[in-house]
Amino acid sequence: MSQKIGRSTLLLNSYPSVKAFAAIVGKKEGEGPLARHFDVIFDDTTLGEETWEKAESRMQREAVIKALEKAKSASTEIDFIFAGDLLNQCISSHYGLRDLNIPFYGLYGACSTMAEGLSLASIFVDNGLAKHAMAVTSSHFCSAERQFRLPLEYGGQRPPTSQWTATAAGAAMVAESAGPPYVKATCAGTITDLGIKDINNMGAAMAPAAAHTIKTYLYDSHTAPQDYDLIITGDLGMIGSDLLIDLLKREGIDISKVHNDCGKLLYDLEAQDVHAGGSGAGCSASVLCSYLLTRIQEGALQNVLFVATGALMSTTSFQQGETIPGIAHLVHLTYQKGN
Amino acid sequence: MSQKIGRSTLLLNSYPSVKAFAAIVGKKEGEGPLARHFDVIFDDTTLGEETWEKAESRMQREAVIKALEKAKSASTEIDFIFAGDLLNQCISSHYGLRDLNIPFYGLYGACSTMAEGLSLASIFVDNGLAKHAMAVTSSHFCSAERQFRLPLEYGGQRPPTSQWTATAAGAAMVAESAGPPYVKATCAGTITDLGIKDINNMGAAMAPAAAHTIKTYLYDSHTAPQDYDLIITGDLGMIGSDLLIDLLKREGIDISKVHNDCGKLLYDLEAQDVHAGGSGAGCSASVLCSYLLTRIQEGALQNVLFVATGALMSTTSFQQGETIPGIAHLVHLTYQKGN
Repeated sequence: MSQKIGRSTLLLNSYPSVKAFAAIVGKKEGEGPLARHFDVIFDDTTLGEETWEKAESRMQREAVIKALEKAKSASTEIDFIFAGDLLNQCISSHYGLRDLNIPFYGLYGACSTMAEGLSLASIFVDNGLAKHAMAVTSSHFCSAERQFRLPLEYGGQRPPTSQWTATAAGAAMVAESAGPPYVKATCAGTITDLGIKDINNMGAAMAPAAAHTIKTYLYDSHTAPQDYDLIITGDLGMIGSDLLIDLLKREGIDISKVHNDCGKLLYDLEAQDVHAGGSGAGCSASVLCSYLLTRIQEGALQNVLFVATGALMSTTSFQQGETIPGIAHLVHLTYQKGN
Repeated sequence: MSQKIGRSTLLLNSYPSVKAFAAIVGKKEGEGPLARHFDVIFDDTTLGEETWEKAESRMQREAVIKALEKAKSASTEIDFIFAGDLLNQCISSHYGLRDLNIPFYGLYGACSTMAEGLSLASIFVDNGLAKHAMAVTSSHFCSAERQFRLPLEYGGQRPPTSQWTATAAGAAMVAESAGPPYVKATCAGTITDLGIKDINNMGAAMAPAAAHTIKTYLYDSHTAPQDYDLIITGDLGMIGSDLLIDLLKREGIDISKVHNDCGKLLYDLEAQDVHAGGSGAGCSASVLCSYLLTRIQEGALQNVLFVATGALMSTTSFQQGETIPGIAHLVHLTYQKGN
């Protein structure tokens, strides 16, 4: 049963386990520094499907199936799945998961979806509402580019602040205590908008939301940055990460020694020409559901704050001159109960 | 604390209350049969905003503020808000709610959003995760038409099976027991796709999902249609409602005597030229958060199943030849505890 230790902060006293997790990625991600941690690396961007959108749906489905396989579970054992993605009306999740017949709560959290879904799945398990619950999300470079930016065929140039949408999906299955990694706590984000309008600098637009959530959680949990091995955001990239560190420093909180960002880990930033780093709901999801959860499972990381961030605009809001609101959801992961 | 009585069915043993609710609608809805139940009726479709999307955001914000007013509560008393809408990347919710500083879980459930949000808000309150939680959603005829169908200026003809997207928003605030209406139980939907491809007949596409959820809940709760004053779907319209009744009859379940549909209640179907009825996330939300909850509060309705349905396609999935998956979430509302 969860204990409320702040307005939006819950301690999950039963320490639900992330019993299994899986990450499915595309070719470029499979050529990056985390390659050996992924479950499946697809060689082309279509996965043999007719369209990029269908390929993205397929990745989300494959991530769920792989996680189930690793848990030696059937889809019928999952009581609820929390899923969403970046595509209009979240079609990757709807079409990817429709044949699995799992009770479904659809989410929209943009690139924060993995933390939002993992929070809700963990809260459900902690309170006995689900025996097993799943969180999954995805993104695809090609489906995102044509929806949010320009036709790929146009060959538009990308400014240095821009990030590269990952072709990737991640799924995590939460169960009653089954060994590490454990979910110790969650903290829901608040929509935060400091007035950034540059659609090519979304890291900067999301940094204030990350700062807000991290500050809230540290306050509610009476902890400090040095209590953690890692505070990992996703996906602020290079520019947003620097801004986050600055914003928190102004509040007297120095996370610089323990901070990293999923958008900086997924690619070799220089060799792979991804400018400010990775992004997309699949970026933080695939980094979490491969490298990060494995490191916590092994005990190499003992105490991690996973803070996925989302930019909540659309092409329509952008065209109408709106600024870019951001959100960041936090999940506290540990190697040991009671940490 | 909730009790799991089925894979996706939860009995909310504390009977959380819908402490306050509000519905904000446009001109056409304000000329319909439920007019006297709405809190605010706007005279024009822009609400004085520059664009329809901004008008829709504004409606969502006004619904929340009006519900807070009626509860004599401040926004700071709401621990979590569950919100989403039909627009790409759910911008109505993000822009409408960004200044309220309420911890935010973004949802995408298409026209099922009100039931999804009310389910999660009620579950959070029932398990002590929130003292107060809010659910809100909206739709707008003009923003939906131009996103999903054709520019309004084109003046395209609508086939008789088509439904009319409501210009409306509804918000419901859930609190620890504070009198009726009570939320007795929730049942999450499962994505259901029987292969309907006609984008102008979404009621038919969603009916199988509604049938699935209603059948599941009746089974899990050991109840029958005659145990309810009303089983109300939203928004199947005329054609989808008939199909739902038929689908359930084949399973030996006859809901014909107690069934109605929010899409049939919001407008005078003949006089207001809305073809098969209303639709849009705001349709079921505004019917629930005005007429329905009032009737339960008064005791005129004692036992109601609110089953909001969503069609989970996008224009992209439609153009790619995909069928239309549907989903339906259920909330069991009662006038008395223990009903």
